[in-house]
Amino acid sequence: MSSTFGTLFKVTTFGESHGRAVGAVVDGCPAGLPLTEADIQPQLDRRRPGQSALTTPRDEADMVTILSGTENGVTLGTPIALSVNNRDQRPSDYEETTEVPRPSHADYTYLMKYGIKASSGGGRSSARETIGRVAAGAIAEKWLNARFSESAIVACVQSVGEVEAPELIGDVLTRELVDSNPVRCPDADTAKKMIAAIEAACAARDSVGGTLTCICRGFPAGLGEPVFDKLEAKLAQAMLSIPAVKGFEIGSGFAGARMCGSAHNDPFVKKGEQLGTATNYSGGIQGGISNGEPIIFRIALKPVATIGQAQQTVDLTGRPVELEVKGRHDPCVLPRAVPIVEAMAALVLADAALQQEYRT
Amino acid sequence: MSSTFGTLFKVTTFGESHGRAVGAVVDGCPAGLPLTEADIQPQLDRRRPGQSALTTPRDEADMVTILSGTENGVTLGTPIALSVNNRDQRPSDYEETTEVPRPSHADYTYLMKYGIKASSGGGRSSARETIGRVAAGAIAEKWLNARFSESAIVACVQSVGEVEAPELIGDVLTRELVDSNPVRCPDADTAKKMIAAIEAACAARDSVGGTLTCICRGFPAGLGEPVFDKLEAKLAQAMLSIPAVKGFEIGSGFAGARMCGSAHNDPFVKKGEQLGTATNYSGGIQGGISNGEPIIFRIALKPVATIGQAQQTVDLTGRPVELEVKGRHDPCVLPRAVPIVEAMAALVLADAALQQEYRT
Amino acid sequence: MSSTFGTLFKVTTFGESHGRAVGAVVDGCPAGLPLTEADIQPQLDRRRPGQSALTTPRDEADMVTILSGTENGVTLGTPIALSVNNRDQRPSDYEETTEVPRPSHADYTYLMKYGIKASSGGGRSSARETIGRVAAGAIAEKWLNARFSESAIVACVQSVGEVEAPELIGDVLTRELVDSNPVRCPDADTAKKMIAAIEAACAARDSVGGTLTCICRGFPAGLGEPVFDKLEAKLAQAMLSIPAVKGFEIGSGFAGARMCGSAHNDPFVKKGEQLGTATNYSGGIQGGISNGEPIIFRIALKPVATIGQAQQTVDLTGRPVELEVKGRHDPCVLPRAVPIVEAMAALVLADAALQQEYRT
Amino acid sequence: MSSTFGTLFKVTTFGESHGRAVGAVVDGCPAGLPLTEADIQPQLDRRRPGQSALTTPRDEADMVTILSGTENGVTLGTPIALSVNNRDQRPSDYEETTEVPRPSHADYTYLMKYGIKASSGGGRSSARETIGRVAAGAIAEKWLNARFSESAIVACVQSVGEVEAPELIGDVLTRELVDSNPVRCPDADTAKKMIAAIEAACAARDSVGGTLTCICRGFPAGLGEPVFDKLEAKLAQAMLSIPAVKGFEIGSGFAGARMCGSAHNDPFVKKGEQLGTATNYSGGIQGGISNGEPIIFRIALKPVATIGQAQQTVDLTGRPVELEVKGRHDPCVLPRAVPIVEAMAALVLADAALQQEYRT
Repeated sequence: MSSTFGTLFKVTTFGESHGRAVGAVVDGCPAGLPLTEADIQPQLDRRRPGQSALTTPRDEADMVTILSGTENGVTLGTPIALSVNNRDQRPSDYEETTEVPRPSHADYTYLMKYGIKASSGGGRSSARETIGRVAAGAIAEKWLNARFSESAIVACVQSVGEVEAPELIGDVLTRELVDSNPVRCPDADTAKKMIAAIEAACAARDSVGGTLTCICRGFPAGLGEPVFDKLEAKLAQAMLSIPAVKGFEIGSGFAGARMCGSAHNDPFVKKGEQLGTATNYSGGIQGGISNGEPIIFRIALKPVATIGQAQQTVDLTGRPVELEVKGRHDPCVLPRAVPIVEAMAALVLADAALQQEYRT
Repeated sequence: MSSTFGTLFKVTTFGESHGRAVGAVVDGCPAGLPLTEADIQPQLDRRRPGQSALTTPRDEADMVTILSGTENGVTLGTPIALSVNNRDQRPSDYEETTEVPRPSHADYTYLMKYGIKASSGGGRSSARETIGRVAAGAIAEKWLNARFSESAIVACVQSVGEVEAPELIGDVLTRELVDSNPVRCPDADTAKKMIAAIEAACAARDSVGGTLTCICRGFPAGLGEPVFDKLEAKLAQAMLSIPAVKGFEIGSGFAGARMCGSAHNDPFVKKGEQLGTATNYSGGIQGGISNGEPIIFRIALKPVATIGQAQQTVDLTGRPVELEVKGRHDPCVLPRAVPIVEAMAALVLADAALQQEYRT
Repeated sequence: MSSTFGTLFKVTTFGESHGRAVGAVVDGCPAGLPLTEADIQPQLDRRRPGQSALTTPRDEADMVTILSGTENGVTLGTPIALSVNNRDQRPSDYEETTEVPRPSHADYTYLMKYGIKASSGGGRSSARETIGRVAAGAIAEKWLNARFSESAIVACVQSVGEVEAPELIGDVLTRELVDSNPVRCPDADTAKKMIAAIEAACAARDSVGGTLTCICRGFPAGLGEPVFDKLEAKLAQAMLSIPAVKGFEIGSGFAGARMCGSAHNDPFVKKGEQLGTATNYSGGIQGGISNGEPIIFRIALKPVATIGQAQQTVDLTGRPVELEVKGRHDPCVLPRAVPIVEAMAALVLADAALQQEYRT
Repeated sequence: MSSTFGTLFKVTTFGESHGRAVGAVVDGCPAGLPLTEADIQPQLDRRRPGQSALTTPRDEADMVTILSGTENGVTLGTPIALSVNNRDQRPSDYEETTEVPRPSHADYTYLMKYGIKASSGGGRSSARETIGRVAAGAIAEKWLNARFSESAIVACVQSVGEVEAPELIGDVLTRELVDSNPVRCPDADTAKKMIAAIEAACAARDSVGGTLTCICRGFPAGLGEPVFDKLEAKLAQAMLSIPAVKGFEIGSGFAGARMCGSAHNDPFVKKGEQLGTATNYSGGIQGGISNGEPIIFRIALKPVATIGQAQQTVDLTGRPVELEVKGRHDPCVLPRAVPIVEAMAALVLADAALQQEYRT
C-alpha cells in the first residue's frame, strides 16, 4: 500500500490538493517527546510556495494542527494526527486535464490505475501530498535530535540545469547556510548563476531540473537492515517516492562505477574511541548498515512537467490537440524540495534507529 | 524487517554462505501456475560463479529444490519454499576478518549492529544471499509471462570501469543477445574492451565497477502505487538492496536534471488502441504508475571490495595492520549481477501487478 | 503496531478522548464508490452515548467530516481521512487517576508501557477510540454491499448478565428489528428483562456484562486465508481488540468442544447451483476460509470497569485508598457495542474480499 | 497474507503434508541466543503423533534441521530457516477427496479459494502445517526464557467432551505435571475419565472435542499494544489460527459476561515492589497491555472432522454419496494441541516483548 511508510516509526499521509485537508498520521513515535505545532511549522514554511520570486506566487498558509497524540505538549506514544487545511478547493484551473492528460504528469496513469477521471487529476501526485511528509519528518527529526544529540540532516541544491556547485564540505553544512539565499545552494557564487538559470527558464515559460545533496551526520553505526531494507535501499525508496525525482546515488554513486576497488575501498582508521574510515566512498553505509561516518546521498529531479508553453499532444481519444496549461507554477522546484528530502531522510533514519533499539 | 520483500507477492530469503543452505519462501504466488525446478535453475545458472574465466573459479552447483507449494508441477497458491544447499560450510578463508574488519565490507557494521563476531562476517551480505532472490524472481517472472504474454525483463552490462556501451535499443534486447559474450554486453565491440578491462583489473589483483541497464517491456499501464510505493521507488529500493549497488536512475535519470521541461516532457501519441508517448524520458512511469511504455532504469555497481592487493587498515582495537584477503573472488561482478537485477525487477513488477488486480 | 488494521483494506485510527479530534484514515478502498458523510453518520449515531436512558447521558454530537479521498461524492482510491471533533477536551473528571490507577482500567498498564502519567489515563483505551473504527467500518460495509449485493452484517445483544435471549434465527435478523428496543435484543420479551437488569445495575451504582451475536450473510465462499490470517482468526483479533471483550466463539464455539465429530460435522448438500451445508456448526468457515454459509460468531463483554461504588484499591505508591470515580458512565455498554462489532466485522470481510479479488 | 505472523519476531511457515518438507523461517530473533536443534526437538516430539495409544499410530519422526541463522550454536540475528522432511509424500489415502469434499474439512473452501483440486485437499490446513509453528515457537520460548528468567508458558487439557477438570491452580502447573499422563490433564482422576472418553470415541469410530487452558507467568507489565494489536487480540488470532479451534476466552471470559462490575474489577494491591491485583478476572491484561499478573486463557477445540464412520454428503456436482474416509486419525487432538498452543503463545509474547524493547 502506498500511503504508509516505515516499520516502527510509521507515517500514513492523506489528502488531495482539492479536498478539505492534507496531512498525516504518525504512529510509533515514542512517548515523552516534547512536541507542539511550533516544532513542525518551520519545515512546512520552508516547503511552502511563495517564499521568494523564484517560486510560485500562490500563497498557501499551510498551518499545521496536531489533532491527537500529545498532551500538555508531550507525546503520548499514540498516533499523532496532523492536518493542514486546503484553502482553495476549486479545481477550476485544472479542468481541461480530464480530457487531455498533461504530458509527463500523472493524469493518464491515474486514470489507467483507478478508472476515475477526477478533476484533480492525479490527486495524490500533487506537490501538496508532501505536506504530510514534511510534517511527519519534522517529528522524526525532533526525536532523532533528542536521541542522538549531535545528529543533523541537511540538504541543499547541488545543481540547477547545467549550473553545478563545487563539491560540498559536509562538516560545515547547516540549514542557516543553505537558507542564506533563495535557491538554497550553500555556495554564494553558484547560487547567483542558479538564480539566473531559473529566471531564464521562467522567462521562456519553461522549467528546469537539478540535483540535491543531503548529508546526515552524527548517527551511530548499526542502523539499517542487512537485506531488502538496507539503509541505502530505504533512502532510495524514500527519495524516488518524492514527485519528480529520477535518480539516487549513495556515496560514490555513478562515479564509483568507474573506479577500481583499490581506490574505492575505505580503509578503517581510529577515530577517538571508535573506528572510522579514512575516505567515505561508501557514503556512510556498508552492507546496508551505517558505519558512523556521514551518510551522503544525491538525487536528481527532472524539470517540472507543468510549463507555460503550448504543447502538442493528444486527448484521451487520441485526437491531436495543443495543450496550454493555465495557472502559475514553479519553474524550478529544487529549493522547495530541500525540506522534503530532509523529511524523508529523517523518517528513514528514525525508523532504522527504532528498529535497532530492540537489538541493543 | 529486512528479509521480506513485497506486499502480495512476498519473498523471504534466508541463509549465510557458511550455513547448511540458502533459499527463499515465496508467499502469494497465485495457484495454478505450472512450476518446477527447471523453471528456476536457468537463472541460478546465470548467477552462478565459474561460468567463464572472468568470474570466480569457485564451482558452486547451486541446484534448487522446491520444498513446498507445488503439486504435480503446478502451484497450489501456498508458500513455495526453495532451498539450495551450501557445499562448503568451512569458514576458514575468512577467519582473520573477525579481528580485522575488511575495508568496505560489512564485517564492521554487522558487528556494530548485532554485537556478534561471526566467522562468516557479514553473513547475509554475502553474494550467496542473492540465490534466494534469483530463485524467487524466476517464479515471479514465470507468473508475469503467463499474465502478460508479451512481457520481457532483460538486463545487460552497460559499462565496465571507463568502458561504456552505446545507448541501447530496447526493442531488440534479448537474453540470448546479452549472453552472446561472457561479459553480457549486447554490443560485441564494447564487450571485447570490457573483457580487456576486467582482465587488466584481475592482473593487478584489483577489481572494477560498472553500470547495468534493465528494460521491462510489455507491461500494461496502471502498475504501481501513487505515494511511497511508487513503481520507481520500489525498483530503487530493490536495486539498492543488491550488494555493491551505489546508484539508480529511471528514464532520463541524472541527465534529466540538466534538461528543460519543454524538452523533457513526453508528449502523448496514439499507439494502436491506446495512448503512448513519443519520447520516453519518463522511463515508462509517471506519478509512480506505469504508462505502458518500456520501463527503463540503470544502476551503478561499485568495484567489489574484496581485492588481492594488501590494504592498510586497522583492526578492531584500532591497531594498524596490513590486510591481505585470501581466497579467490570476482574482479568484476557485473556479468553475474544481470540475473539478480532481472529477479528483483520481476519481484517488484509481480507485486505491483497483483496489487493492481484487485482494483480492476 | 497497534493502530493499523488490515492488509489491503487498511484502517489507522487516531485520537484520545481529550485531544482535538478522533478519527481514522482508510487506505485501500477501491475508487468509484459513492461515499459521503451521510453513509457514515448513521452507524456513528448508533454508537453515540445518550441515545436512551440506558446509556450515559453525555451528549456527544460526533459529526464526521471526510477530509480527503473523495471528490463529488465518489471515492478516488486514495486514503480517506475521517475526523470527529472532541467537544470537551478538559480532563478534569479523571484527574485522580494519575495517582490512583482505576481497577480493571488501562491506567496502570499504559503507565507501565509508556512511562507517561497522562491525565487522560489510558487515552487510547477510551471508548471514543472506537469512533474511528465505526466510521471506517461504515465505508467497508458500503463497499461490501456494492460488491456483494445480498450481503448483510447484523449484530445484536444476546445476553445481559444472567438474562439470555433464545437462539437467534439468522435469516430474519435485521438492524431494524435489532433497533426496535433500546437494548438491541431482537426478542422483545427478553429485551424487557434486559432493560430491568440494566436499570437494577444502575440503581446499585454497578455495571453489568453480556454477550453479542453477529451474523454476516450473503458472502461468497473463498474469503479468508489458510494459516495465520484464517477468517475466524482475524475476526477473533478484531473482536478482542474492542474494549471490554473477553471472549470469542465461531459457530459451535465452546459448546462444540463437548460434541462428537459425527454430530458436529456439517454434511454438504446442494443449494441451488452451489454446495451448502445442512447444519452450520462451522459458523460459515472451514479451514479459515468462508464456505458461503452465514458467518456466525458470539462475543463476551465484561461489565464495564467504571462503577459509581467506592472501591478499595491502592495508589501508585502502594498506599491503600478508597477510590470513588466521578463522572457518569454506562452501566452496560452492550447496546452501544452493536455498531462497533458490525464495523470490525465489516473491516475483516472487506479486507478478506479484496485479498481474494486478485486470485480470481 | 496468511503464512507470516508477527511484527518484529516474525515467523513464516511453509509446507503441505504431501510435499518434500514442512518448516518455517523465523526472522527477527535477536543475535547471541544459544540455539541448536536440541532446543527445538522436544516440543516437536510432544506434538508428534504416535506418542501413545490415544493418538494416531502414524510414526512420523519429524526431526528438525536448522538451515540458517546460527553459527557455532548461537543465533546470528539473521533469518533462522527450519525444515522437517515429510516421509511419505504419496497422497493415496486422500484421493477421493478431490471429488467428494470431506464434511467440515477445508477441501471445499480451498477449491473455492484457489480453484485447484489438489490431491492433498486443503494442503495447508493439514495438522502438519503446525510443525513449523511449534519449531518457531520453541525458539521464541528460548528467547523469552533468556529475557525473562522467571517466565513459563504451560498449556494443559481442561476438558474432553463432557469430562471437565477442576479449576487449575496456575502457580503449580508445569510441563512435567502436564505430561504425567498421556491425555495431558494435570488432574490425575480427571485424566482417567478423559482417557475413557477418548477410547469410547475411538471405539465408536468417532471423535471428541475439548478445551485447553494456557498460563503464561513471569512476564512483566507493559507488553501488548493498545488498539488492534491488544495482547489478548493477538492471542485470540493466534489461537483461532490453530486448526479446529472454535473459541477463545481471556481471564473471566464468557463467565465474566454474567458478572457485575463490582465483583469483576480486580483491585490493586502491593506485591513486593510493584503493584499487582487481588483477583485476576482480567487474565493478566488490561486495555490490551499486560499488567504483570499471570496471563490465562482458554480455547475450545471442535471434535476432529475426520471420523471412521460413513457420512452422508454430496460430491462436487451435488450428487449424494456416502463417504467413508480411509486412513487412521486421532479421535482426539487435544493432547497434541498442547505444544501448539504453547508455541503460538510464545510467538505472541516474544513479538510483544520485542515491540516493547524499543520503548523502554
